[in-house]
Amino acid sequence: MRIRLVIEYDGTAYSGWQLQAGGDTVQARIEAVLEKLFAQRVRIQASGRTDAGVHALGQVAAFDTPRYFDPLELRRALNAMLPSDIVVREAAEVPAGFDARRAAVVRVYEYRILNREIRSAFDYRYAWHIAQPLNFAAMQDAARVFHGRHDFAAFRTLGTETRSTVREIYLTQWQRRGGLLVYRVEGSSFLRHMVRSMVAAMVEVGRNRIGLDELRALLVGADRGAAPAAAPGCGLFLVEVRYAPASAHGRS
Amino acid sequence: MRIRLVIEYDGTAYSGWQLQAGGDTVQARIEAVLEKLFAQRVRIQASGRTDAGVHALGQVAAFDTPRYFDPLELRRALNAMLPSDIVVREAAEVPAGFDARRAAVVRVYEYRILNREIRSAFDYRYAWHIAQPLNFAAMQDAARVFHGRHDFAAFRTLGTETRSTVREIYLTQWQRRGGLLVYRVEGSSFLRHMVRSMVAAMVEVGRNRIGLDELRALLVGADRGAAPAAAPGCGLFLVEVRYAPASAHGRS
Repeated sequence: MRIRLVIEYDGTAYSGWQLQAGGDTVQARIEAVLEKLFAQRVRIQASGRTDAGVHALGQVAAFDTPRYFDPLELRRALNAMLPSDIVVREAAEVPAGFDARRAAVVRVYEYRILNREIRSAFDYRYAWHIAQPLNFAAMQDAARVFHGRHDFAAFRTLGTETRSTVREIYLTQWQRRGGLLVYRVEGSSFLRHMVRSMVAAMVEVGRNRIGLDELRALLVGADRGAAPAAAPGCGLFLVEVRYAPASAHGRS
Repeated sequence: MRIRLVIEYDGTAYSGWQLQAGGDTVQARIEAVLEKLFAQRVRIQASGRTDAGVHALGQVAAFDTPRYFDPLELRRALNAMLPSDIVVREAAEVPAGFDARRAAVVRVYEYRILNREIRSAFDYRYAWHIAQPLNFAAMQDAARVFHGRHDFAAFRTLGTETRSTVREIYLTQWQRRGGLLVYRVEGSSFLRHMVRSMVAAMVEVGRNRIGLDELRALLVGADRGAAPAAAPGCGLFLVEVRYAPASAHGRS
């Protein structure tokens, strides 16, 4: 049977989602528990990777179980055995062949900024602290520049191999929430470091270092070297991954 | 000159506030930075200690500087040198002899409980997770039992030497806040483990294991052996320490 998990994790302690030699990753932690439960190796496939220090409220991942296991029992067992900073929120059976990456139609990210003089002893794990006052209205305008279909070649990690760097953004907006500036972005999919690069560029606008025209020029120019470095990973949250109704509704 | 600090810290990584052999404490971290700044040993005195894993939003502490140092510069220097999980929110000059412990007239604590089946990958550092549904109305009634002047001998660490175990509680109430159950208590001062012992007893009420009459009997009986063990430290926050106007207003 194939199982879909919705997973929440505090990424502070991990080298990101994806399995890698010498790194403690969220995927490795979950696979280690599954291996104990099933007494054999189980590979789990996520909607996409998250980088070191990046958090998730609703990462989605799927795997084939070697034998039948009640999904709610599986969730209970996983949560009993996983570390405190990784939690399985949901577990449900999905059709064989469900592809957590390819079947995803919308990915939702949030980026949190703490914009005040004094840093926070709590938010430092979950927000980018910027002491200098930002022009929030300008950042709200900047967010709208990204709406729609664009070539995001300038807003990604240099050297990443990708067939196309064109992506579509459905929602892009800043809001104030509990003392934080929160950027929410929804799109079909994202290039590596894309959200953090977009945030870094919008912060440059908020610092009055570049204007909206220069931001538009960055997007049209598609020159990675021209864009500012990515914002820190700690502020980024993978909030939700949405699937088309047919593939999303498993039996739980 | 004497300086009063208001300090915020995430207590997760520390063996509490107070200096102790072999333990990494908040006091030790602050004194280490002060020693670097002043090139000599500086002892700092807090409103009271907090235990391992307990957090503070507004711990107050005071010390004498070996030489003049502008309070705002001092705050800036401390925040630049302290670890990410300790922050100095305020620094101000106070009259010589200001006693952060004895001059405190009200201490405010909060205790946070996450009461739902699934634990949280984020709140596990800052709340006590209780999966079993609690009777919240009963806990609100239980909180009122503690109001006023009582002998809290049953609600503290066994073996603590204290002249009197009578304390006065000015405010004691539960509220729901952002998915958490939050207990707020204000009193002149508290015995060691007193808030966590009170919370543990109220949770027993919320679990329908003891009734209000039994809670009252615990308070009147003053028998530590009869009360439940203290609630975990991670849920506890020292929110604020208040001083009489005369001693509170330093020059900043």
